Amino acid sequence: MIAKSMESYVTGSSAIRAMFEEGAKLAKIYGAENVYDFSLGNPNLNPPEEIKQAILDVLNEEEPTFVHGYMNNAGYEDVRAKIAEHLNKKFSATLKADNILMTVGAAGGLNVIFKTLLDPGDEVIVFAPYFGEYRSYIANYSGKLVTIPPNTETFQPNLETLKGSITQKTKAVLINSPNNPTGVVYSEATLKELAAILTEKEKEFGIDIYLVADEPYRELVYDGAEVPYVPHYFKNTIIGYSYSKSLSLPGDRIGYLVVPEEVADFENLMVAASTANRIMGFVNAPSLMQRMVARCLDCSVDIEIYNRNREALYNGLTDFGYECIKPEGSFYLFVKAPIEDDVAFCRVAKDYRILIVPGSAFGCPGYVRIVYCVAYDTIIHALPQFKKLIEDIKNK
Amino acid sequence: MIAKSMESYVTGSSAIRAMFEEGAKLAKIYGAENVYDFSLGNPNLNPPEEIKQAILDVLNEEEPTFVHGYMNNAGYEDVRAKIAEHLNKKFSATLKADNILMTVGAAGGLNVIFKTLLDPGDEVIVFAPYFGEYRSYIANYSGKLVTIPPNTETFQPNLETLKGSITQKTKAVLINSPNNPTGVVYSEATLKELAAILTEKEKEFGIDIYLVADEPYRELVYDGAEVPYVPHYFKNTIIGYSYSKSLSLPGDRIGYLVVPEEVADFENLMVAASTANRIMGFVNAPSLMQRMVARCLDCSVDIEIYNRNREALYNGLTDFGYECIKPEGSFYLFVKAPIEDDVAFCRVAKDYRILIVPGSAFGCPGYVRIVYCVAYDTIIHALPQFKKLIEDIKNK
Repeated sequence: MIAKSMESYVTGSSAIRAMFEEGAKLAKIYGAENVYDFSLGNPNLNPPEEIKQAILDVLNEEEPTFVHGYMNNAGYEDVRAKIAEHLNKKFSATLKADNILMTVGAAGGLNVIFKTLLDPGDEVIVFAPYFGEYRSYIANYSGKLVTIPPNTETFQPNLETLKGSITQKTKAVLINSPNNPTGVVYSEATLKELAAILTEKEKEFGIDIYLVADEPYRELVYDGAEVPYVPHYFKNTIIGYSYSKSLSLPGDRIGYLVVPEEVADFENLMVAASTANRIMGFVNAPSLMQRMVARCLDCSVDIEIYNRNREALYNGLTDFGYECIKPEGSFYLFVKAPIEDDVAFCRVAKDYRILIVPGSAFGCPGYVRIVYCVAYDTIIHALPQFKKLIEDIKNK
Repeated sequence: MIAKSMESYVTGSSAIRAMFEEGAKLAKIYGAENVYDFSLGNPNLNPPEEIKQAILDVLNEEEPTFVHGYMNNAGYEDVRAKIAEHLNKKFSATLKADNILMTVGAAGGLNVIFKTLLDPGDEVIVFAPYFGEYRSYIANYSGKLVTIPPNTETFQPNLETLKGSITQKTKAVLINSPNNPTGVVYSEATLKELAAILTEKEKEFGIDIYLVADEPYRELVYDGAEVPYVPHYFKNTIIGYSYSKSLSLPGDRIGYLVVPEEVADFENLMVAASTANRIMGFVNAPSLMQRMVARCLDCSVDIEIYNRNREALYNGLTDFGYECIKPEGSFYLFVKAPIEDDVAFCRVAKDYRILIVPGSAFGCPGYVRIVYCVAYDTIIHALPQFKKLIEDIKNK
């Protein structure tokens, strides 16, 4: 028999499977091109051409036992040094190889950092809406998830409530900007205020609070928006990054953690994190992918394609009367459900062959997440269906 | 501050670092070519030529968003089907895609399976000597490691002691054949007796006991030795496999779990394991590597090179008076330390510029592990030093 801790996942998983199966059934009945799947954050853009060339170059130019072999559990020294240098240029930082730990994507990185930091019962604060997987990443180490309710005006984190939620047991605050599911970029003002609160509470309780910034969407921003470099605002910041979205290779599992030297208990933390990477079974981030990204630090998918999707979907939906913040980043719209029950709304949407995810999955009922890392045509063809959907609801 | 559970790792890690630093110091003084490093199981053979070609073919022939995208957390359906078919041919099994779960190497696979199975306090039995990382893989899920002392005559598992060590809380027995560190292949007779004991104890306690077979060295066998297919002997067998050694790509992190349909609680177990793969942050095994191995199922490094190393090292050492079982598999020799204290012996060996690992690290004091996945010349040049070492000890 499986572990008790996994039983609820099995139950939940069958609900997800049921949803997929219904989607597959719809595709069978109406044809796949007539089912509008906005449910999965799986990038639809090809990786930049440079990626393939860089892999070929690594295979042709570098020593095979080096390219495919074990290295330091933290990653190749030269790759980490290059990433540090790249970040220094981009953010006027002063990182070295020792501040970078290569990880199996951002999901791997977050698990490594929570394994490194959390004792059972330690509290980790997240701001709703938040990526639902965070629940597991924290529960894996018997941490306690503390949720701050959303500020649905701006979807900036609700800092007033944060103040009263920090306790002696607060070990970390986890933020995600540009945000999944809202697309909102946390502003400089937000980060300054957040830092002030954390600093004050660190003093009040005599503790260190780590600010973990999950930034897989950092490169996906529009209208000239800038994502502030969080360590400039708060000393105890750890960044989790992934190339999944900026290079469109989520399956290859490559990312890194940034731990600046100013972070509390820095030296022990880096040894522990690198050990965690090993003993959790990652051992090291995929080696060929490490070698590849070191050659592609300035590459990115063509954001303009996502931007066109964003404009089409946002303008279309708001024209029809849907309510939604215009997102500055990532590839999600977070739309107010036109009926109160977001789960019910997603069920109704399915009758219009539209697949979307309820906000409840992100700790924010009453809203739905619509991804736009899909073909432009999917959006164009789906818009009349979205229109019909809201009209039918209003005419009921 | 880091988690309490990670503190001992930080302490231990500084001991390992000290060892590496001493090795580096020796290399500086005597030249790297005059330091004989037999401490790391990092294959020295290039991956087979087909690997590079297969990667190029995948990149040239398959759709980029497919190759680099997310797929089912268990892995690509077609890759799993091909691996199942490959195993069916090789072992007269009846596996399907659903019995295979692609993992981030064997280390990832073992962590996934223990996350899936273990409730806090559940016991996992291992036979000394055993790969030291197992301690962490079990502790990660608050499992209790139960160690069976070695049978130093044959280094087959000590089944008499096993019988008395199984309790109501036994959840799994973890075996590793061909074995790290001994190179011993567990015989058919061993597996039959082991299966009989497990079956008897399952009945006695009214429990399911999972036999987890860690088989990263399955393809590395010599003198025509065969590694029995464990599910033929015991119904509740789960196999962990990795291409790290057979294809010489440990850094790329690609392997799989085999869970035959007869395994207790099969359906829940597969859903839970695939969920565990996701929530632990692996998400899925590296996608390009999955696509590659499906094209290289019959490939292997040239075992004859390891065999030549094995013969040279084994014959040399035993000629000098070292005591050692002749290993049938993997790329390790497990040699009796000529002085009682294996840790002290490793320290002395360092004075002869020989780096080896004490058996204590494998739960088997009094022995040392010597790897032979090194250059043949390293062995040839080191042999006179090994000779001097044992002579000096005997003449003391």
